[in-house]
Amino acid sequence: MLRTHTCGELTIKDAGKKVTLCGWLQRSRDLGGMTFTDIRDRYGITQLVFNMDSNAALCEQARKLGREFVISVSGIVAERSNKNAKMVTGDIEINVDQLEVLNTSLLPPFTIEENTDGGDEIRMKYRYLDIRRNPVKESLLLRAKVAAETRNYLYNENFCEIETPVLIKSTPEGARDFVVPSRMNQGEFYALPQSPQTFKQLLMVAGMDRYYQIVKCFRDEDLRADRQPEFTQIDCEMSFVEQEDILNTFEGLTKHLFKNVKGVDIGELPRMSFADAMTYYGNDKPDIRFEMKLRSLTPDPSPKERGENLVSGKNFKIFDDAELVVAICARGCAEYTRKQLDELTEWVKRPQLGMTGLIYSRWNSDGTYKSSVDKFYSAEDQQKWFEHCGGQQGDLILILAGEKNKTRKAMSELRLEMGNRLGLRKAGEYKALWVLDFPLLEYSDEQKRWFAMHHPFTSPKPEDIALLETDPGAVRANAYDLVINGTEIGGGSIRIHNKDLQKKMFSVLGFTDEDAQNQFGFLMNAFEYGAPPHGGIAFGFDRLCAMFGGSDSIRDYIAFPKNNAGRDVMIDSPSKISEEQLKELGIKLNEK
Amino acid sequence: MLRTHTCGELTIKDAGKKVTLCGWLQRSRDLGGMTFTDIRDRYGITQLVFNMDSNAALCEQARKLGREFVISVSGIVAERSNKNAKMVTGDIEINVDQLEVLNTSLLPPFTIEENTDGGDEIRMKYRYLDIRRNPVKESLLLRAKVAAETRNYLYNENFCEIETPVLIKSTPEGARDFVVPSRMNQGEFYALPQSPQTFKQLLMVAGMDRYYQIVKCFRDEDLRADRQPEFTQIDCEMSFVEQEDILNTFEGLTKHLFKNVKGVDIGELPRMSFADAMTYYGNDKPDIRFEMKLRSLTPDPSPKERGENLVSGKNFKIFDDAELVVAICARGCAEYTRKQLDELTEWVKRPQLGMTGLIYSRWNSDGTYKSSVDKFYSAEDQQKWFEHCGGQQGDLILILAGEKNKTRKAMSELRLEMGNRLGLRKAGEYKALWVLDFPLLEYSDEQKRWFAMHHPFTSPKPEDIALLETDPGAVRANAYDLVINGTEIGGGSIRIHNKDLQKKMFSVLGFTDEDAQNQFGFLMNAFEYGAPPHGGIAFGFDRLCAMFGGSDSIRDYIAFPKNNAGRDVMIDSPSKISEEQLKELGIKLNEK
Repeated sequence: MLRTHTCGELTIKDAGKKVTLCGWLQRSRDLGGMTFTDIRDRYGITQLVFNMDSNAALCEQARKLGREFVISVSGIVAERSNKNAKMVTGDIEINVDQLEVLNTSLLPPFTIEENTDGGDEIRMKYRYLDIRRNPVKESLLLRAKVAAETRNYLYNENFCEIETPVLIKSTPEGARDFVVPSRMNQGEFYALPQSPQTFKQLLMVAGMDRYYQIVKCFRDEDLRADRQPEFTQIDCEMSFVEQEDILNTFEGLTKHLFKNVKGVDIGELPRMSFADAMTYYGNDKPDIRFEMKLRSLTPDPSPKERGENLVSGKNFKIFDDAELVVAICARGCAEYTRKQLDELTEWVKRPQLGMTGLIYSRWNSDGTYKSSVDKFYSAEDQQKWFEHCGGQQGDLILILAGEKNKTRKAMSELRLEMGNRLGLRKAGEYKALWVLDFPLLEYSDEQKRWFAMHHPFTSPKPEDIALLETDPGAVRANAYDLVINGTEIGGGSIRIHNKDLQKKMFSVLGFTDEDAQNQFGFLMNAFEYGAPPHGGIAFGFDRLCAMFGGSDSIRDYIAFPKNNAGRDVMIDSPSKISEEQLKELGIKLNEK
Repeated sequence: MLRTHTCGELTIKDAGKKVTLCGWLQRSRDLGGMTFTDIRDRYGITQLVFNMDSNAALCEQARKLGREFVISVSGIVAERSNKNAKMVTGDIEINVDQLEVLNTSLLPPFTIEENTDGGDEIRMKYRYLDIRRNPVKESLLLRAKVAAETRNYLYNENFCEIETPVLIKSTPEGARDFVVPSRMNQGEFYALPQSPQTFKQLLMVAGMDRYYQIVKCFRDEDLRADRQPEFTQIDCEMSFVEQEDILNTFEGLTKHLFKNVKGVDIGELPRMSFADAMTYYGNDKPDIRFEMKLRSLTPDPSPKERGENLVSGKNFKIFDDAELVVAICARGCAEYTRKQLDELTEWVKRPQLGMTGLIYSRWNSDGTYKSSVDKFYSAEDQQKWFEHCGGQQGDLILILAGEKNKTRKAMSELRLEMGNRLGLRKAGEYKALWVLDFPLLEYSDEQKRWFAMHHPFTSPKPEDIALLETDPGAVRANAYDLVINGTEIGGGSIRIHNKDLQKKMFSVLGFTDEDAQNQFGFLMNAFEYGAPPHGGIAFGFDRLCAMFGGSDSIRDYIAFPKNNAGRDVMIDSPSKISEEQLKELGIKLNEK
């Protein structure tokens, strides 16, 4: 080794030792007869001292070093007079007597510091320099830790790691595939997997019983802010299980990761039906770090909520005409100013939400009510709203009205916004839950057919199978999502293992027998040969890591991410290929 | 869980317990009033008993089950009268009182047994059934074990697992890339990585210090028997190290794997120079489970061997004209019959080796010598050959003569063949070694230029750098291969970390500055910003697993391999894609 120690390990116990360190020059300060230089590696930072009195030549040499030069230094560990309690190595410094420049460096295009002066674009282009910065480096180390702990847990639970192929077959169902032209089979293409779904089911048919893989998946979709064309999943499947067994096993994994990665005991995971999540949170990934549930003031279609209509018959046309009138109660916000309320109104009117307005009602500290619709609703009416929402004196009720789905979605967003404004979505607090009983199918008005909400292999609940023919939208799936702090982290289902049921499912999805056979024939054939009951789950690994790192962005948890145009700006890819390559592959480019 | 136990865990200690097992019906035997059925899962096989006397209906039901039906059974664990010591569960059986058919099965197209009656092709097509067979299942479990032990070791050595991208950039150097047309950047392509080489070097520039990944790599090459278009590497890189450090670290990994996967202590790994490997074994991946070294009877170019010419000047034109006359000594083979020698002669004359003949010399048990060239070489001459080869009375010398490279290669093959015939290449015996000091460059007579023997980032030995301009072929690399039982399992090198040296290397390889900048500009740019000294290694993971499994074929160690035409016959891929997909990608197929 070119070093005896790393830059992150020497402490007062090592005082007097002769050591050699290697690393990058972080910064240098010349103070009269001394030069203090910080040397940095993956493990930490150590202070070096060059003394003009004892070795002028060496000190002069040190003064010529630039930032990010790669150096090797030898010297004696000494106690610092000026200790830095924030650093592991803060009690010591190295009195350097030997210095070797292992490599020079141009001045980096941005500072290699906790908070850099570099913009996004330049940092992506020089990603190898950005990774030297502590926050990015720590993100990658965290990711490695999450992977290692995931493997430990699953290995101990008898899961067998099996690699599934990357060069597979294109299937039109689902998102768009990346494809790979085959040179040896000209005119034909492989596809990159959007997930190893069919292969892991085949592994269950193959008797492998418990499978896992931390695996790259690919989707050729138009990229949104936080989506990558290649992403990583923790992919798992189990045989001879029911939904409850999968929930328990992966609740175990979730707890294990929180315990071993974050040192947090998250306790038992609550469970919520999809219907309740939609009713009370307006979406299927509720952030349950705070309450502020959605309450409908019109009769609600869900059995628990039915109840009376609290807004109709008062000649307020907007409420009378609305498919849904829904409220949240913001605790202690009766004092909100006109300006704050106007701001919120503008917020819900943004094109993303598209509401026409926001109604409020205050229960003032003097016991009176004040609402933007006082003309139509008496104090008694408003009090009923507060009762219905579980509101108290001093609270503020916010109400949206309109088309059901749009209004519910907007209220879900407003709830999160109020959570933010009130500091109720605390960083460092983690609330995980299972969302269960998803609908099996969604209807596409555009394509006039049913689509699988998860994927076509998801099993309906046995008691709902009969509804497949009469009322497909009412069929619930044996499907489940793991949601943490309002983010979907994992999802899965019990699969169909019966070929007749699978055929029926394809037929409900509008596949002809021929289509189904063409695309999934190998899986349906496999089901002829003794498929066991099975189910599984997949976690979005990039997002899981970002969540543990306390970030909303997955990008810093990926060593070499692509930008929103799907480009790797560091290596400048994708790029043109030669005519010869195209010819060998039997393809040509369309004229532009 | 649908079961209380697996089919591989119940023993006499469990007698009397009420259990539920799930699995596949392996076989069934009706003996008068009893039916004995074996149920199989990933973990083992357990014998079930159905009794016509105690429950006729159940027994009748059991008799209707077919092979590979998926069943769930409950019953009491009982001691067997007829124990099977070969099975973990061989002391017990289950007296079944409940039976549920979880799924039926068609009769499989081949038997699900240790030795199946299915041919290669049908087993590939029904891979999910082949995996149910013990040898294939065990191969996949072994692979998972090797992966887990690899990760344990590297994690403890502070290696950080980092995923490098799969959608990268095509580079003409090296093998052919698989490419992926970009929809968002029409006319441009990603490439799939042949290895993460440049990315792992960038991670060293990024300061990550110790990186590893068990990673899929891709090569669009014409497939040979044991090559796959996608394969897996254990890929590693370290900073601030010299060759010696890498050898020690990965000798450690090798020992750890042998110990923990095979229970074998393989001891210190010997080291051999490339030159010695070529001289004494005729190739750079010597099988050192046995000696039988190649000895040149003509003066050898290698310094150690120079010596006198032991064949010239005796008017035997074939030896006189030969560039190389090389011998091996087969211990105790003086009694080889004429027929055996003729057979060996035919063997070396096969087109693959293309030798014109094989000369032998026997040192008979009566002390006389007998050779196929007695006319030219006296007993004294032959005795010198035996002395030179370290032969004894009773041994047989085999000699090949001709063009140097071809003859050496043929003798290397003949040595292995003799090793096979004499039982010297023992299965279950493992001999690993490092081969060192490879040439940096190879000359291509076809393309009239130098090629990197490993890859263009391999560092020359510092003392040889001056030769780059005067005698490129003599420059040795800081490169190393790990060879086990005659198979190259790993290879790596110390990398160039100096941009000027890297530029010179590209120029020796015939790259214009523009080419180099186009293809590797991002790496050369990175080297401007403080690249540390670094080096690494990659292990062929598929081959490593096959080696541990005692197999020459990697295919059974891959869950879903492709055939020699690059096809996955199970899913029937590659396949055609739709016109719409082609159009979106901006490509069209060439007319045939």
